Amino acid sequence: MKNNDLDYQIKTVRVGILGVSGYTGREVLSLALKHPYVRVTYVAANNTQGPIAEIYPEFLNRTTLVCEKFDLKKTIEKCDVVFLALPHTESMSVAPKLLKAGLKVIDLSADYRLKNPKVYEKWYAHKHTDLKNLKNAVYGLPELFRQKIKGATFVANPGCYPTAAILGLAPLISTRKDIQSLVIDAKSGVSGAGRKATTDRLFAEINENFKAYKVLSHQHSPEIEQYLSGLAGRATSVHFVAHLLPITRGILNTMYVHLSEGISLNQVHALYKKFYKIEPFVRIHPLASQPEVKNVANTNFCDIGLAVSPDKKMVVVTSVIDNLVKGAAGQAVQNMNIIYGFNETEGLL
Amino acid sequence: MKNNDLDYQIKTVRVGILGVSGYTGREVLSLALKHPYVRVTYVAANNTQGPIAEIYPEFLNRTTLVCEKFDLKKTIEKCDVVFLALPHTESMSVAPKLLKAGLKVIDLSADYRLKNPKVYEKWYAHKHTDLKNLKNAVYGLPELFRQKIKGATFVANPGCYPTAAILGLAPLISTRKDIQSLVIDAKSGVSGAGRKATTDRLFAEINENFKAYKVLSHQHSPEIEQYLSGLAGRATSVHFVAHLLPITRGILNTMYVHLSEGISLNQVHALYKKFYKIEPFVRIHPLASQPEVKNVANTNFCDIGLAVSPDKKMVVVTSVIDNLVKGAAGQAVQNMNIIYGFNETEGLL
Amino acid sequence: MKNNDLDYQIKTVRVGILGVSGYTGREVLSLALKHPYVRVTYVAANNTQGPIAEIYPEFLNRTTLVCEKFDLKKTIEKCDVVFLALPHTESMSVAPKLLKAGLKVIDLSADYRLKNPKVYEKWYAHKHTDLKNLKNAVYGLPELFRQKIKGATFVANPGCYPTAAILGLAPLISTRKDIQSLVIDAKSGVSGAGRKATTDRLFAEINENFKAYKVLSHQHSPEIEQYLSGLAGRATSVHFVAHLLPITRGILNTMYVHLSEGISLNQVHALYKKFYKIEPFVRIHPLASQPEVKNVANTNFCDIGLAVSPDKKMVVVTSVIDNLVKGAAGQAVQNMNIIYGFNETEGLL
Amino acid sequence: MKNNDLDYQIKTVRVGILGVSGYTGREVLSLALKHPYVRVTYVAANNTQGPIAEIYPEFLNRTTLVCEKFDLKKTIEKCDVVFLALPHTESMSVAPKLLKAGLKVIDLSADYRLKNPKVYEKWYAHKHTDLKNLKNAVYGLPELFRQKIKGATFVANPGCYPTAAILGLAPLISTRKDIQSLVIDAKSGVSGAGRKATTDRLFAEINENFKAYKVLSHQHSPEIEQYLSGLAGRATSVHFVAHLLPITRGILNTMYVHLSEGISLNQVHALYKKFYKIEPFVRIHPLASQPEVKNVANTNFCDIGLAVSPDKKMVVVTSVIDNLVKGAAGQAVQNMNIIYGFNETEGLL
Repeated sequence: MKNNDLDYQIKTVRVGILGVSGYTGREVLSLALKHPYVRVTYVAANNTQGPIAEIYPEFLNRTTLVCEKFDLKKTIEKCDVVFLALPHTESMSVAPKLLKAGLKVIDLSADYRLKNPKVYEKWYAHKHTDLKNLKNAVYGLPELFRQKIKGATFVANPGCYPTAAILGLAPLISTRKDIQSLVIDAKSGVSGAGRKATTDRLFAEINENFKAYKVLSHQHSPEIEQYLSGLAGRATSVHFVAHLLPITRGILNTMYVHLSEGISLNQVHALYKKFYKIEPFVRIHPLASQPEVKNVANTNFCDIGLAVSPDKKMVVVTSVIDNLVKGAAGQAVQNMNIIYGFNETEGLL
Repeated sequence: MKNNDLDYQIKTVRVGILGVSGYTGREVLSLALKHPYVRVTYVAANNTQGPIAEIYPEFLNRTTLVCEKFDLKKTIEKCDVVFLALPHTESMSVAPKLLKAGLKVIDLSADYRLKNPKVYEKWYAHKHTDLKNLKNAVYGLPELFRQKIKGATFVANPGCYPTAAILGLAPLISTRKDIQSLVIDAKSGVSGAGRKATTDRLFAEINENFKAYKVLSHQHSPEIEQYLSGLAGRATSVHFVAHLLPITRGILNTMYVHLSEGISLNQVHALYKKFYKIEPFVRIHPLASQPEVKNVANTNFCDIGLAVSPDKKMVVVTSVIDNLVKGAAGQAVQNMNIIYGFNETEGLL
Repeated sequence: MKNNDLDYQIKTVRVGILGVSGYTGREVLSLALKHPYVRVTYVAANNTQGPIAEIYPEFLNRTTLVCEKFDLKKTIEKCDVVFLALPHTESMSVAPKLLKAGLKVIDLSADYRLKNPKVYEKWYAHKHTDLKNLKNAVYGLPELFRQKIKGATFVANPGCYPTAAILGLAPLISTRKDIQSLVIDAKSGVSGAGRKATTDRLFAEINENFKAYKVLSHQHSPEIEQYLSGLAGRATSVHFVAHLLPITRGILNTMYVHLSEGISLNQVHALYKKFYKIEPFVRIHPLASQPEVKNVANTNFCDIGLAVSPDKKMVVVTSVIDNLVKGAAGQAVQNMNIIYGFNETEGLL
Repeated sequence: MKNNDLDYQIKTVRVGILGVSGYTGREVLSLALKHPYVRVTYVAANNTQGPIAEIYPEFLNRTTLVCEKFDLKKTIEKCDVVFLALPHTESMSVAPKLLKAGLKVIDLSADYRLKNPKVYEKWYAHKHTDLKNLKNAVYGLPELFRQKIKGATFVANPGCYPTAAILGLAPLISTRKDIQSLVIDAKSGVSGAGRKATTDRLFAEINENFKAYKVLSHQHSPEIEQYLSGLAGRATSVHFVAHLLPITRGILNTMYVHLSEGISLNQVHALYKKFYKIEPFVRIHPLASQPEVKNVANTNFCDIGLAVSPDKKMVVVTSVIDNLVKGAAGQAVQNMNIIYGFNETEGLL
């Protein structure tokens, strides 16, 4: 059981989690329970209620929290900050009310990531109904937007593929003007698809299997393109293909950056080391070593590997994260740490 | 594509499969398409219709069959024998009609395995509505009931756990009078649970996991006890615990037979070798060697291993099968081979 | 990176780990680096040397430790307590020297678990060469031997199967005089077999596979029997069969306890709840709920489930642990916490 | 057991397999035992001898063959055709002797795939010692070189990645002059790495993991480039990155073909359908459907999916095979069928 002595309670943040019955919500809860400056005061889900330890026996002896049906008033009374682990399109009906009541909100859905509501509408097949907060939402990728997050009351937590893609490409995209084409070959573990019961996510369908899906048509493409364009200072497009790995956690993006001028492996390695010099969660692999999913599983790290073709014109960047941690819940906690001025790694190492 | 020359068509059996959208039905189809004396003429399912190769792309270039909504009249017109791969309690509404029309029926559900309708009702929570055919159904375990299957028009195909359990215990149970207790610790791959989408069968729930379920209360217990009692010539009960393995195919039963008098390893090994001497699909492992699930995956074999405690009073029998083949579809085809007088291994090696 | 400020260093224990190149040693390292009162000062391995972050890239940015070839003098100078994650039979050549120099030692090998050297010799095929310390070693199962561990300088950390078995059986074995027989059907993930490269541990051999091994002849049997006998107050033997699960971490033991008098499910549940009432790491599942490996993976918990047959004479106990944590490294850290008077859960929740 | 009646023996080919202790050799054996016109007369391996059913219990009741230490004279006496499932560089010391003795040889190693011995030397770090047969070896990719294979006595069976890559790219590469760049993002199951015991192939290292390896430096690149260049009629290079999937069998290549002129999805789909119209083992997926590894596991099929970017200038081709079947043993049997004038699908459907 969590130590709740006085010393802690003084500086404790009261945390609420909406959508705790999904994989992302559960991961936020698990991290929050270990966080020294957090007290989880409210958890809710629409399709499951009852003691958390009954819903998820992994929490036996760890918490006496009871999952409730979402109640706006209770949420506002009990929480300082709320993590929204809701399905896409549901966040935007809740977030405005919480923000209006003065709470801080960290939204793990896709609702506030795309700045252009028309692009959102195209990819998520739903009209955006909260343009005001869409405009103000800060994109919660600390390595690129830490200063904005510091003062934020509302954070749009990045998608899992975009986190791995943008961190893997940022050093090149923000410094090279000779990028000819970008291919992102992305592979994700199954938890990224959520906990809804569908035939194609059954064990016997995924196990010993591998396939591409949403080829050149994944809804994370515009999110990636929006932020790469910002970094590049010009419209930037990617060829993005997603694949489903027979593992529970982890993403590996293999990214092919075609340069017209070329760069040596030593140069690109130095560029990445420098770009992420102070970052606690981005680790550039030594030369000739490649990152592996298992090294970042259950952590908030993003590991990056680099290779260059003999003619120096093709850079292959591989980036790995745990899709539920750095790709979702861990990054959300990292954002909370920044907002509240805690050590950025608090509860995450 | 299947060779359909004249020579084959003469002796071909016209096969229908009801419930082809489940794992068992699909497996029957896959085996039937490879069988030299079978022509699949009708496939049906209630929740999916259309070309089989679209439902299951593994059948691209292999068949042009179209899955239809079940139609009794069509089934009777088009088929000589029908495999029922239907959910429990659905078979007994269809089987009587097919039998009445003169078709042969091999039922892969549990509806006709338990001879006592009260026992059926207790374990499957449903009144039995076809007592006449229940009485006549032959239990399709060829190694024990081959002679009865030869003349049968209606076969109740055994459950997966019971197949592995009964084959593994038959030599001891039918010869020893000093059995004190029977423990069956059973482990099954996930396909045994079927293809229905439920949260607890999702990849992320099963993967890297293992658990017991229906401890001492699995519906296969009475089926095992009924046939063991028959072999023993007296009421015989078992302590049966099922577990869920993170693999797609395969069952391993570890069975603890407590004897009051004792037996040596050589004796028990000789007993098993002799008991299954002529069986094409039961393989007794050499002394000190243990069967493995992967050696029987995608085959109709049942492999058996033996060990004896130093005091000779505990015999541990391990038996493995592929739950979808020897535990379901393969055994069903084996039964069809026997009914029609084909070589018993036809299409199965 | 670990915080090393003055406040911590004052109460910090200097920890050494021998055999850090194996799975167990790595797990000790991983836990020790997160422990607030530990400073890892020395790590060694015989077949691999160099920066830990190069050997295991998961430790990039987490430690600058360098793995060395074992040097006795250095170990003594640099450490207060040493974890021995060495192969069986190697610990007993190192432990006496470290103990003689005044260090505390927690041995994760099997060398000091069996009190009778003849039994050790029989099962590990090696003469025991350190009878003095064998006699003094405290068996590090805190739930049963906490008081002895408190004052200990030398702890024999229990085996993985025995931890799950003894914790699962202790309440019954220490209170019931009517136990007729004990069957332990044990299943373990592959990391239990260590990190040595052998053909039978290759991915393609284990994946989609399952098998029994060392049937009725596993070296953990005498360890289990020794401590159960102690609890029962009379010689107690078990029928133990081990199986290999296609997962990395986790053990589930299904244990069949045959009672001549019988017990109700409510009674046995109450017995277990009471027995483990104050234990932070043992969780008794609610009635009708079964423990799962994934709920204890990467934790120091032991979860226990209970079932009773209709005639009340068969109790089925299921216990699960992470073989590398509660079954090895986590329990070792728990023992260290007890020895040093830290909170017993420090670094483990 | 295999039927060996007179009718069969007349047209039977006597088959030898060298290197039967590896995964590829075992797969050749498994397929050969099921082939109606094959009699396996000789199997050899250097590090394992004895009855095949003892080495691989999956062959219990299926064969009484005994694996011997390789003996040239015996091989020549007993065989018509020999499959070489030997490590790279070993084939070229055996093949010339068998060919000289008049046997037919199908080599599954890489020794005779690269026509330029200098390229071989560069990538396999070994001088080529059999230039004569290197020149005459026919590349055994039936879909492209069927006519040459018909009269061949010596076939160099393609690599697994190259099979999937070349089949996936052939229609485009042989018809389009506007290809700007080719990226091959390849993912393979672990059996492709062979059966040698190394730490990095252990279950606990591969399971729940994913990583790239030999990035832009895999020895299959020059093999792919050689045959693509032949098809294109000009030097063609690829950017090839290999990844290791946590599955036993299967390869999926995602290939990015950048065209300067563009092509519609319908056009490219029609092109592929036409190109492989008569092929029994290449299946072009319907529009908007993607191939999956599990649909080709344990089969000789190569399934291909297609997608095109909105601007029509990027074609994404996905191709899947079973690396041990179409990527090795199955293709070798297909080549044997062609050589001997059997139905090309004999023993493979």
